[in-house]
Amino acid sequence: MRILIAGGDGFCGWPTALYLSKKGHDIAVLDNGIRRQWDEELHIHSLTPIATFEERVAAWQGHAGGTFTAYNVDMCDYDALAHAVSDFAPDAFVHFAEQRSAPFSMIDREHAVLTQTNNVVGTLNLLYILKEVAPDCHLIKLGTMGEYGTPNIDIEEGYITISHNGREDTLPYPKQPPSIYHLSKVHDSHNIMFACRAWNLRATDLNQGVVYGVQTDETKVETALSNRMDYDQIFGTALNRFCVEAAAGHPLTVYGAGGQTRGFIHIEDTVRCIELAALNPAKRGEFRVFNQFTEEFSVFDLAKMVERVARDLGLNPEIQHVQNPRVELEQHYYHAAHTRLLELGLKPHLLNDSVIRGIIEAALAEKARIRTDIIMPTVTWS
Amino acid sequence: MRILIAGGDGFCGWPTALYLSKKGHDIAVLDNGIRRQWDEELHIHSLTPIATFEERVAAWQGHAGGTFTAYNVDMCDYDALAHAVSDFAPDAFVHFAEQRSAPFSMIDREHAVLTQTNNVVGTLNLLYILKEVAPDCHLIKLGTMGEYGTPNIDIEEGYITISHNGREDTLPYPKQPPSIYHLSKVHDSHNIMFACRAWNLRATDLNQGVVYGVQTDETKVETALSNRMDYDQIFGTALNRFCVEAAAGHPLTVYGAGGQTRGFIHIEDTVRCIELAALNPAKRGEFRVFNQFTEEFSVFDLAKMVERVARDLGLNPEIQHVQNPRVELEQHYYHAAHTRLLELGLKPHLLNDSVIRGIIEAALAEKARIRTDIIMPTVTWS
Repeated sequence: MRILIAGGDGFCGWPTALYLSKKGHDIAVLDNGIRRQWDEELHIHSLTPIATFEERVAAWQGHAGGTFTAYNVDMCDYDALAHAVSDFAPDAFVHFAEQRSAPFSMIDREHAVLTQTNNVVGTLNLLYILKEVAPDCHLIKLGTMGEYGTPNIDIEEGYITISHNGREDTLPYPKQPPSIYHLSKVHDSHNIMFACRAWNLRATDLNQGVVYGVQTDETKVETALSNRMDYDQIFGTALNRFCVEAAAGHPLTVYGAGGQTRGFIHIEDTVRCIELAALNPAKRGEFRVFNQFTEEFSVFDLAKMVERVARDLGLNPEIQHVQNPRVELEQHYYHAAHTRLLELGLKPHLLNDSVIRGIIEAALAEKARIRTDIIMPTVTWS
Repeated sequence: MRILIAGGDGFCGWPTALYLSKKGHDIAVLDNGIRRQWDEELHIHSLTPIATFEERVAAWQGHAGGTFTAYNVDMCDYDALAHAVSDFAPDAFVHFAEQRSAPFSMIDREHAVLTQTNNVVGTLNLLYILKEVAPDCHLIKLGTMGEYGTPNIDIEEGYITISHNGREDTLPYPKQPPSIYHLSKVHDSHNIMFACRAWNLRATDLNQGVVYGVQTDETKVETALSNRMDYDQIFGTALNRFCVEAAAGHPLTVYGAGGQTRGFIHIEDTVRCIELAALNPAKRGEFRVFNQFTEEFSVFDLAKMVERVARDLGLNPEIQHVQNPRVELEQHYYHAAHTRLLELGLKPHLLNDSVIRGIIEAALAEKARIRTDIIMPTVTWS
């Protein structure tokens, strides 16, 4: 297949591009480098050293199973994006190219407006381009499990059948997004659902859980292919950040009580889910939603697992409950369906001590680069 | 009360400002005049001649029950909006200041992006301003009944209690907005809901039906106070447009089969609903939703009513089913709750022959200005 990966320079996009390329697909990676600029602006960095976009693309081309090309394009630039889509003519457009951090979106009004306009306008541009030049192309859009919030009933995959006053209908699952970033994803979901209905497009919305792990088989081939690893308060997420904290001798920072329960997924499964979605496309006019995670954990349970594995490695971590910078329930019901990708053949890489040890060891290998001053949360919701 | 009316130069905002002013409230009207610019750009116009913003504000000041001031401000200009809110210090901020036409949003990509960025960013700016300088101010936001789409179950007021797999929760009512414009209102609703929860703001979302009628007691006081009347394909809506068509001897243009059923409300009730919401504010932290309409009609039934009344007036209208420019169901279940404003004391002005005759007569009074070339739909959804 011809697959275009937008946001192909990012934490999920880059290993996805390499995996699909290794499997023999013709791949284009599209990125505007803004994620690297945000590192500069916020004085943060990837713990793993990463090559430039140009260097890593050049480094992979010898390993690719099919063609492997790159576009330096901002999705908010309609003409440039339209050119890339026309030029590459993808069968599937995988859209990772959004501002993806909740804390980033909550820094201040400017970052809130940037997040919503960047994400919504980039996706709107894409929908119009698909409508006009590639109506058969399958849009595979990264959403987030966070769109659902934490309802007191089971979370379904995108839709729920409701019986009410003697009648019944299957409707979009109600969303209660907990940040300006998560809101932007809900806005996208509604826009894409409309485009499928009104313009007969085809789309799969992947509501992904928190991704952990760092490298994949492909990013390990040579150092120039290394994936990024975020542990700072803005782009770091629960499990990976705990592992870096353990490596650094920093307390494992649980926000509040830690009963917050979320869906999690290994980066090795992220890349496989994208291929499964691409190989089994939505029908024309269909807006399909998959919950893309494999297991549920509370953040406190994850911290305890990391603490135990770290002790086995001779480290001496301690768990610290820090004031929760977010407005969220710290104890709540949580149970979310996630069967549709399994039905398509996903064989999950489940979390175990070996996986955690691998992440801690990856952090220990770069221990000299860890900056503990960028870990503690200073961006607050209120 | 001190009430700021954003979009106060518009079809709903202007009569609302006058009504609340007449009732003795201190009023500020805020507008950037963009609606008048769109008339120029699209070569359309209000059937009723209207004074400039400055002229109509000056004309009203002698009739006002309290202070009556104006701000020429774009809500996408954060600093200007923050200044106006700080300067006027409203108890309630009534937000009509959005691009409000579904066909406008569907003209092309540029109008789609303009609609969503204008509406979303203006509202985001306001939410940040309320958080920072006026957290006790009650936001009264105009949404639309169109946010709900046409589900096959009863529509409730903003929330629905769902029993699912043995558990129960009350969640935001699922939305199926049928245009880029309606989507922008859904985006706003989610953003405001979040701001109430995270920042302890207070808001009432008024999901308004289609508004009919033209003048109110206040706009009739002198010609400089006259309200606008839209009948073109972009800003004209079902009932008012049929009345103008009848006056012009133009066919009554029913889109498709005409079984599309919607909630409708008289402009005299719009202004009263706003006062009821303002006098009975939401609590801090509450995001409250009222469905602001008084009766449900199918567009074909409305066309038949207009046809009958027009014949009584000696006109000779005929109903024409034109190709539906929209993607929507033309026969569907529709039943929507609308009790909350009634509970606060709304006494509806119901639709009857006399009301329709009044609208037709208003159109006949300006018959020489009717341009039949701007009526037929050319903007299509697909």
